[in-house]
Amino acid sequence: MSAAIKLGMVGGGQGAFIGAVHRMAARLDGQYELVAGALSSDPTRAIASGQALGLERIYTDFTEMAQLEATHPDGIEAVSIVTPNHLHFAPVKAFLEAGIHVICDKPLTASLEEAEMLAGLTPKNGAKFLLTHNYTGYPMVRLARELVQSGHLGNIRLVQVEYLQDWLAADISNKQADWRTDPARAGIGGAIGDIGTHAYNLLRFVTQLKPETLSADLHSFVPGRSLDDNAQMMLRFANGARGMLWASQVARGNENELSIRVYGENGGLEWAQSDCNTLWYCEAGKPKQMLRRGGPLPHGLTMSDPRVPAGHPEGYIEAFATLYADFAEIIRKAPAKNALPNLHDGLEGVQFIAAAVKSSTKNSLWVAL
Amino acid sequence: MSAAIKLGMVGGGQGAFIGAVHRMAARLDGQYELVAGALSSDPTRAIASGQALGLERIYTDFTEMAQLEATHPDGIEAVSIVTPNHLHFAPVKAFLEAGIHVICDKPLTASLEEAEMLAGLTPKNGAKFLLTHNYTGYPMVRLARELVQSGHLGNIRLVQVEYLQDWLAADISNKQADWRTDPARAGIGGAIGDIGTHAYNLLRFVTQLKPETLSADLHSFVPGRSLDDNAQMMLRFANGARGMLWASQVARGNENELSIRVYGENGGLEWAQSDCNTLWYCEAGKPKQMLRRGGPLPHGLTMSDPRVPAGHPEGYIEAFATLYADFAEIIRKAPAKNALPNLHDGLEGVQFIAAAVKSSTKNSLWVAL
Amino acid sequence: MSAAIKLGMVGGGQGAFIGAVHRMAARLDGQYELVAGALSSDPTRAIASGQALGLERIYTDFTEMAQLEATHPDGIEAVSIVTPNHLHFAPVKAFLEAGIHVICDKPLTASLEEAEMLAGLTPKNGAKFLLTHNYTGYPMVRLARELVQSGHLGNIRLVQVEYLQDWLAADISNKQADWRTDPARAGIGGAIGDIGTHAYNLLRFVTQLKPETLSADLHSFVPGRSLDDNAQMMLRFANGARGMLWASQVARGNENELSIRVYGENGGLEWAQSDCNTLWYCEAGKPKQMLRRGGPLPHGLTMSDPRVPAGHPEGYIEAFATLYADFAEIIRKAPAKNALPNLHDGLEGVQFIAAAVKSSTKNSLWVAL
Amino acid sequence: MSAAIKLGMVGGGQGAFIGAVHRMAARLDGQYELVAGALSSDPTRAIASGQALGLERIYTDFTEMAQLEATHPDGIEAVSIVTPNHLHFAPVKAFLEAGIHVICDKPLTASLEEAEMLAGLTPKNGAKFLLTHNYTGYPMVRLARELVQSGHLGNIRLVQVEYLQDWLAADISNKQADWRTDPARAGIGGAIGDIGTHAYNLLRFVTQLKPETLSADLHSFVPGRSLDDNAQMMLRFANGARGMLWASQVARGNENELSIRVYGENGGLEWAQSDCNTLWYCEAGKPKQMLRRGGPLPHGLTMSDPRVPAGHPEGYIEAFATLYADFAEIIRKAPAKNALPNLHDGLEGVQFIAAAVKSSTKNSLWVAL
Repeated sequence: MSAAIKLGMVGGGQGAFIGAVHRMAARLDGQYELVAGALSSDPTRAIASGQALGLERIYTDFTEMAQLEATHPDGIEAVSIVTPNHLHFAPVKAFLEAGIHVICDKPLTASLEEAEMLAGLTPKNGAKFLLTHNYTGYPMVRLARELVQSGHLGNIRLVQVEYLQDWLAADISNKQADWRTDPARAGIGGAIGDIGTHAYNLLRFVTQLKPETLSADLHSFVPGRSLDDNAQMMLRFANGARGMLWASQVARGNENELSIRVYGENGGLEWAQSDCNTLWYCEAGKPKQMLRRGGPLPHGLTMSDPRVPAGHPEGYIEAFATLYADFAEIIRKAPAKNALPNLHDGLEGVQFIAAAVKSSTKNSLWVAL
Repeated sequence: MSAAIKLGMVGGGQGAFIGAVHRMAARLDGQYELVAGALSSDPTRAIASGQALGLERIYTDFTEMAQLEATHPDGIEAVSIVTPNHLHFAPVKAFLEAGIHVICDKPLTASLEEAEMLAGLTPKNGAKFLLTHNYTGYPMVRLARELVQSGHLGNIRLVQVEYLQDWLAADISNKQADWRTDPARAGIGGAIGDIGTHAYNLLRFVTQLKPETLSADLHSFVPGRSLDDNAQMMLRFANGARGMLWASQVARGNENELSIRVYGENGGLEWAQSDCNTLWYCEAGKPKQMLRRGGPLPHGLTMSDPRVPAGHPEGYIEAFATLYADFAEIIRKAPAKNALPNLHDGLEGVQFIAAAVKSSTKNSLWVAL
Repeated sequence: MSAAIKLGMVGGGQGAFIGAVHRMAARLDGQYELVAGALSSDPTRAIASGQALGLERIYTDFTEMAQLEATHPDGIEAVSIVTPNHLHFAPVKAFLEAGIHVICDKPLTASLEEAEMLAGLTPKNGAKFLLTHNYTGYPMVRLARELVQSGHLGNIRLVQVEYLQDWLAADISNKQADWRTDPARAGIGGAIGDIGTHAYNLLRFVTQLKPETLSADLHSFVPGRSLDDNAQMMLRFANGARGMLWASQVARGNENELSIRVYGENGGLEWAQSDCNTLWYCEAGKPKQMLRRGGPLPHGLTMSDPRVPAGHPEGYIEAFATLYADFAEIIRKAPAKNALPNLHDGLEGVQFIAAAVKSSTKNSLWVAL
Repeated sequence: MSAAIKLGMVGGGQGAFIGAVHRMAARLDGQYELVAGALSSDPTRAIASGQALGLERIYTDFTEMAQLEATHPDGIEAVSIVTPNHLHFAPVKAFLEAGIHVICDKPLTASLEEAEMLAGLTPKNGAKFLLTHNYTGYPMVRLARELVQSGHLGNIRLVQVEYLQDWLAADISNKQADWRTDPARAGIGGAIGDIGTHAYNLLRFVTQLKPETLSADLHSFVPGRSLDDNAQMMLRFANGARGMLWASQVARGNENELSIRVYGENGGLEWAQSDCNTLWYCEAGKPKQMLRRGGPLPHGLTMSDPRVPAGHPEGYIEAFATLYADFAEIIRKAPAKNALPNLHDGLEGVQFIAAAVKSSTKNSLWVAL
């Protein structure tokens, strides 16, 4: 094992949710050491949060952080950007231009213009970029992609993807809810941006098909909420495939139900995060097969070495950590073994939000993606 | 127990599927006795089929059957119409006008004009009509309806309904497949008519909400097939609720997956035929509850006396039989205890098919229902 | 279809549970017509119950019934015995000796002596006998038996069978509970007799292995109850296999959970009544397969024609009815297609109860079966 | 957050399984820093493994390690013992006597004498001990314990616990299999020691009841294997409760199926590792409730702050890490919030193995625990 990669963090101060997840993901496989951070836009909070984490270098400004770390003899090699959506663009740009690898939470940016600018950047020294569409780190999601790619499903006909929550079913106010329902911080998408982009990315990752057009209906159920809390749409693909996508934050009884179903001419597959170590696989004319992480696979397919054997449930943090571990290999110039979400995927996600909002505004007109 | 109701049947000869199901449903609770039939439009087959069933009176023509039975001293009191869609209209009309109660398979008719005519009929002697949207006979579906009606879910926001099969995924030919994919016999709808109407009826039955408009995308995946084998749509309701409906006969790995999910302001419920004795119920702020046929219920709700105690699985035939048993009470002039699908529901189903086809033809334009 | 078999019934009057199930089972496939009965040992109740069912001939004494029906020109060909356990012996004997086929609920008798006497009978005119171990009528249970028999599991090593209920968890009193907890009517076994015999029969039916010895611990949890309400035991088989059996009527939260798991050298299978249309099958080195009623099967196995296609859930009543339908073929002298529980199985069930009680009395000594 | 606790490790060199799990568990919450180790009894391997992990101090002898670390100015505060069973005793003793906190894998020792000696030790400077019965770290297992403790289930009547695997179904040979099937390294128990002790500890942890006696049947199915690969037993408790325990490593199709079911007078609960974020709870007379990690709970029960919100699946590594995190609090002198498996639990586990082996040797005689 090489020495741990020196890691910095922007955002993720006390009270934040996703920052703590990034830190666990970075720690799990021992590939990163968090040494520096600008953990809050509020200086007092940034300092207190940095001290609580025992950081070696604490910043109150990410621009300064990017500059100083780039030249520090023991400076960070990578940085995690875990701020609200509207605060992704500037630090991503600053660190990539400083030649520091960037790990950024999704969606890439709060606006299409920003996303296009980032996608057009030439990072200094070939700095790499990882967008944490963390669900692509699930072993069974990767297996699903391989199954589609192997051709065993035949021509894909149907894709159904859902991401359902209920934590915004009432008009609540807290740190997490407030920025996600505020256009100034979240951008033009509510549920469509927060979780719809995950669903869309999952669809893209597994099928490697890109919808040509979508027809969307975005709606806000909670009075006074200006961003959508429910997004549904129909999709059409170039090969004639059809799809539906449903993202909701007001579906009572759903904790965090992400799922995908793909049906081709010769087979189908089904995966749900609630049973994330299982992938259901149907070959035409055969009994349905329950593929399991670490278990035997059909068609000579293989999975990479697991952290723990079959039957020892892995979950959300492990999937997240897998992206970090895979990105560590890229940072170390090893050939990439797995497809990782990059700037282009980030741009696609923001384009998806824009298209969905546009279609919905135009009474569900079919809009090109 | 009163004497068994004398029952006739039109259609359902040898090789038919749904006719046999109707006969089992009629027999299960001992309320009917099948005594007469015109089981096929082919005279030889009609006679052979009638003899195989040991019928007392065998007809080769349903018009004649209606006339003779109406005046026969021991004539049938009710008739089951189990022909292909395009052959529903004439016998339904003939028997209702002969004053004989009618039980008819869905959809009501193959065309909107026919459906409107039937809905406008005044049956002789107050003859009653039952449309076998059999899924409304499931105890947990009825409980779902009661839960919505009780108000415990609050204002309904979201409805998701699916009916997925895969038996038409390839270009097969057999008695069942042939007429269902033939516009001359099935009408203008393929999957949308055969199973989409069941999904729509389930939505209507459980929520008692009627969509105002729908935006549909119907598609035929199998080359050469002229009717849709996949139908997806978005729905909008008068109260602001949103919904999606997906019916497919090409979703590999799905046997006959009918499901409904309803989410309101204060709660949600989920039911799937594959686990038909269970209804999932979520009250905001409480653990999800697994309601079971025959088991304890919340909010003082009750279920009617079950055939068998909790834990003894009931299924498809029992649900179908429940419609027959409930209709027997109506025939016997008992006050109706449960809502049963009638001519108006049948008309709504055909209107639904027409609207979906229209919307799809107009590139998923929102069309009024 | 031949004319319906004339059927009689002993027991099953108003308020009974299993009698009504037998009647539904007899009706479902249209093979029987119930025409005569001695439905209660109480004459008034016997008459009222017979009239309510519209029976042609109502008896108040089963001995008289056996005699008269045997000579009646249109007399019953078969009779269903659905009395409490202690009232099985006499009517079974009477009808078999009268040359009338007998369908009898389990366990065969309330005592070992009675069981041995019945097993030693020579029925008049070759009258046949069916014990309604109804769970053997489930298509997936039959498939499980075939899978074991096919040798694909290899030498059987482990068998785990459970039958769990909770309806006797408290000290309740009603028609069903009273006789089942009364040694005078139930015999020496409580839960072990009422449901343990079903579990044992399931094990025997599926594996076709007979335990050589058992070590049991029977217990009664509810104060004042003289028969066991919980029975657990370990089993040893001649081939070295090991097993466990657990029957309980006080396991809170269990409705009627019958399940079996069988593991051999090369594979395993699992079935539970709560998901009765599914059989889980594991071949060493392959993903677990979900075998479904009506669906594709491995190893060239086939299932008999289903009443309804895959995905239309069948349940308890259908499985029960399948025994009736199969027995109808035997009555009609057709070659038996499926193994049906007979007098010998009934004797084995009573021997099982006796052995379990003996072992438990002797502090779980290993007792031969 | 305080500075990370300096951690050492004994065992866990290249090719080991559980050592890597301990390291992930130690890293996940950032409470430990692994700095020293004697990772193998083979010096070359110990050095190579230590270097691969970037350890600051690498030892080839754990006795030396204990002595030197105890006096090193920056020495380890805690050590993880992850050797095969027969190599637990000596290092545990050495480190506790050196005043270094010990985290040890289960079972405590390979013999009862060793376990008794360790339980009688007085660790220097009050050094603490944690036995990694890691399944007690699952939030829903802890909730199960609280539910029992709260009295809502009433007097406990039934406990059923299983731990099923199939990886030893054939006669395989590899690093993991070899020592587990070798009495010289594993001790007198095979499956009973490797996984049976986990099952027993789970039972003890959740119910806090101790069986008075057990009647066991241990068996070895694979020819030539000298330790049991299947263990089944019946249990009797002082309060009259009954139980069964089944541990198997030859149950084809089971990956790592640990489960527990507890039924009391007034309620029941069910948990399985395969769905580890769910605890099923039944209150008499109410629908079954699906309790979820991070979700709403009945009876005013609460769970400690989760790493991630409800619906983000946690798994095996998280549960393991929770023991490490909780032990970190104890090391830091914080009051223990949760019950953690200690030396006494370790002794009980070894006593359990001894009793099971004794009972099995004496033909399943009831043996005191």
